[in-house]
Amino acid sequence: MILATLFSPLSLLLLLFFSFSTLSFSHFVPTFPSPSKFHPELTTQLSRSSSSSSSSNGLYETKFFTQTLDHFDYTPQSNHKFQQRYLFNDTHWGGANNNAPIFVYTGNEGNIEWFTQNTGFMFETAPRFQALLVFIEHRFYGKSVPFGGNREVAYANTSTLGYLSSTQALADYATLIIDLKKNISAIDSPVVVFGGSYGGMLAAWFRMKYPHVTIGALASSAPILHFPGLVSPYVFSDTIANDFRSESENCYNVIKSSWKQIEDAGKTDKGLKLLQKSFRLCKNYSSDDLEGWLQSAWTYTAMTDYPTPSNFMNPLPAYPIRKMCEAIEKEKKRSTFEKLYAAANIYYNYSGSATCFDLDDHSDPHDLGGWQWQACSEMIMPLGVRKESMFPESEWSYKSRSDSCQFYYNTTPRPHWITTEFGGYHIHQVLKRSASNIIFFNGLRDPWSGGGVLKSISKTLVAIVAKEGAHHVDLRYSTKEDPKWLTHVREKEIKIIASWIKRYYRDLQL
Amino acid sequence: MILATLFSPLSLLLLLFFSFSTLSFSHFVPTFPSPSKFHPELTTQLSRSSSSSSSSNGLYETKFFTQTLDHFDYTPQSNHKFQQRYLFNDTHWGGANNNAPIFVYTGNEGNIEWFTQNTGFMFETAPRFQALLVFIEHRFYGKSVPFGGNREVAYANTSTLGYLSSTQALADYATLIIDLKKNISAIDSPVVVFGGSYGGMLAAWFRMKYPHVTIGALASSAPILHFPGLVSPYVFSDTIANDFRSESENCYNVIKSSWKQIEDAGKTDKGLKLLQKSFRLCKNYSSDDLEGWLQSAWTYTAMTDYPTPSNFMNPLPAYPIRKMCEAIEKEKKRSTFEKLYAAANIYYNYSGSATCFDLDDHSDPHDLGGWQWQACSEMIMPLGVRKESMFPESEWSYKSRSDSCQFYYNTTPRPHWITTEFGGYHIHQVLKRSASNIIFFNGLRDPWSGGGVLKSISKTLVAIVAKEGAHHVDLRYSTKEDPKWLTHVREKEIKIIASWIKRYYRDLQL
Repeated sequence: MILATLFSPLSLLLLLFFSFSTLSFSHFVPTFPSPSKFHPELTTQLSRSSSSSSSSNGLYETKFFTQTLDHFDYTPQSNHKFQQRYLFNDTHWGGANNNAPIFVYTGNEGNIEWFTQNTGFMFETAPRFQALLVFIEHRFYGKSVPFGGNREVAYANTSTLGYLSSTQALADYATLIIDLKKNISAIDSPVVVFGGSYGGMLAAWFRMKYPHVTIGALASSAPILHFPGLVSPYVFSDTIANDFRSESENCYNVIKSSWKQIEDAGKTDKGLKLLQKSFRLCKNYSSDDLEGWLQSAWTYTAMTDYPTPSNFMNPLPAYPIRKMCEAIEKEKKRSTFEKLYAAANIYYNYSGSATCFDLDDHSDPHDLGGWQWQACSEMIMPLGVRKESMFPESEWSYKSRSDSCQFYYNTTPRPHWITTEFGGYHIHQVLKRSASNIIFFNGLRDPWSGGGVLKSISKTLVAIVAKEGAHHVDLRYSTKEDPKWLTHVREKEIKIIASWIKRYYRDLQL
Repeated sequence: MILATLFSPLSLLLLLFFSFSTLSFSHFVPTFPSPSKFHPELTTQLSRSSSSSSSSNGLYETKFFTQTLDHFDYTPQSNHKFQQRYLFNDTHWGGANNNAPIFVYTGNEGNIEWFTQNTGFMFETAPRFQALLVFIEHRFYGKSVPFGGNREVAYANTSTLGYLSSTQALADYATLIIDLKKNISAIDSPVVVFGGSYGGMLAAWFRMKYPHVTIGALASSAPILHFPGLVSPYVFSDTIANDFRSESENCYNVIKSSWKQIEDAGKTDKGLKLLQKSFRLCKNYSSDDLEGWLQSAWTYTAMTDYPTPSNFMNPLPAYPIRKMCEAIEKEKKRSTFEKLYAAANIYYNYSGSATCFDLDDHSDPHDLGGWQWQACSEMIMPLGVRKESMFPESEWSYKSRSDSCQFYYNTTPRPHWITTEFGGYHIHQVLKRSASNIIFFNGLRDPWSGGGVLKSISKTLVAIVAKEGAHHVDLRYSTKEDPKWLTHVREKEIKIIASWIKRYYRDLQL
């Protein structure tokens, strides 16, 4: 299956490689490397932790809802049903009689268990709000695959995959939530939605489009403005460059100057052997492959540059970019390749168990492969690299995206659909008159923050910006080592959510 | 084609007959009579006036837009395109350089020319606002038929007809408006949407769902609450009864007691002949047919009980219910059938040219037939009749609707979809926090007013209620005979729309 080879573990990132690629069309596939290349220890470990939580750790019950394939049409095909998975925890719920709140995570492009494990904030705040927790899996991901759960069929071509879209996903959430509330007799319980990354975009859009289903949304690191005409294609890569530069100008310079050296080495057999040796590659890879692998490391690390040790994409220490730059700076006399290896090793091999790196390993433990399709249908999020950045220069090209999508799926994207459906142009003027109760959290070290809402729009449409924050860091479990700013962010979010709920109860009594 | 026989000229009314029918399933078809039964003069006249306005009266240019069949999916079928008609008048437009406003009519279930002719309010207010006028035809109606404009194919079965839905129509409007604004370089021109009846529902929903495309909506006689669980099924028929009763208690009593007499007459040949003679029927019809024909007359007249002469459904005098009741009262000694005939004649033959009435005439001059499908997919608007009303008692039965839809289209309705997608429950609490800039006009003589928003929700969500008003009377051309209340309603609407535009311009400068 073609898709498997195109996977990328935090699939929003696929977009990056769409545009970072300066390679010809025939090199399209290799530009989607998986960040977890080495085997076998880490991948095994990840999948083990993933499966154990669903069955035995008591975090949640797993349930299924019979969902409609197509909410907006009434063709015979569209009347098909599928089983949508959701995770359910009522440990702290105050019950229907009290109209106690329901907290819903609007699932992203992957296995919902993985996002659930990385959204400790909901578990930690549930007791305070006596909230029921529900995590809904996005259609076509994890175990929520239409067409009888048959992935071969569902992902075969556009006649089935065509039902994977953001608007259908939002309608899924509305339908499931309304039905669930009926079933547990909690019609008047307020629903608050939460989401990070693409899940955050869905949460924000859900509040905008379905205000009768949710009273408010915490949209964390949601780049709802990262669409054509609304954002500079360079903001993503510029942010990564700034992240490294903020640790040390030299660190940035070493990486920036490395690409030419790698390309030069790639031109000779001797050079290729040097690359293999320097980077502990299991076999000989082209310089293009290696560049993609390093770009992944720098990019994912920037996204997950958390202030405490984490294991979202890969296991990482606290402040991993700082650690990378320290590794680069450590021994000034080492070669550029040795420095880069030392830094990349932090991302790919923090546990230290890898003996060599397999750049062909495109395993997909979190089942993120469907994003490739979403990036070919409606998620046209322009990304490019300018000269001043840290990556090889690359212009954003819609045509190149469109050509790829034509080749892989025999489909042409609809580049203006997202802004047609959800807006974005003059967003402050529009939303202040037509929406309320959304928190837009962004950490400025997160490359996706450039496409986020960074200024408050009104008293109830609040932007929280953390200069030192990374990709939806606020949603993670708290730790004793959390810096003060992070604790304050979460406290502020809790306070705002409490105000929504309070006002909802007051409205209800009118 | 089955559909043609099920047509009803103001197609929202189809719903009525779905539920007014106390007949068995086999009688389903005859309960959808056309209100314009007699031939040939009036039908000819109507269609003549209809076609002339599109070509020669200079009211508008006719244009077409290449529209996407399915906005929400990406299957091969959904990528089809079709030609959507819209009418365009820039006589008074202030131009793109001035960001002059664009007034858009969100077309209903029929030929857009017909609705345009009955929305004089937009033409009359255009000069004052220097507004561009655009009237967009609803997909599957008029000349906006997908599948190459081939009605046989488009209406053949659910595999094609399944793309006729309200959400697709709203997305059509968003797509067309955004594209049009680009093409005329009027990106920052504010768009105000207008609609009456189902078009009014679409206008209101459009403002709720696409606030980035329109700054406000005038939703006239829009029964957005006429859905299961939100409204009494009796409110529609109760309103009609009250309309007649308000003219004279005796008038109401004559009609109320007539059904049994008609049914009794229908049991014998002699009685049937009496009915044919009394009602000037072209041939013998069953009492069921006659009842449907009379119900249509009373109902449509209640909807169009305008204070001035009109020709919306049929040509009618001012205050037609009063005229009907006067006809019933006129000669006390006449038989019930003669009284009813005199009243019905006002609706069916005000021009006086009919020689006999053909109850089998199901011609559809305004192309409203598609509503039958919409009533079988998502437009589940419960209607019933209680004992105290003026019509034969009849309980609303979802099962009966569902059975009919299964029979005719091999489809089962989705009765909760509209409220899932657009809300309705606790609408005041929801919308006051999540919407603005909608005028809900309702005339209380209009049977659909019971499903409308009759109380203001906030300073910017304003209900205008006219005790003496009928179905979207505010949208009609003004006349010298307009009563003061109607003039005031329109002035109030203009003032509110002006305030939206003023605030939009102010926001734009921030």
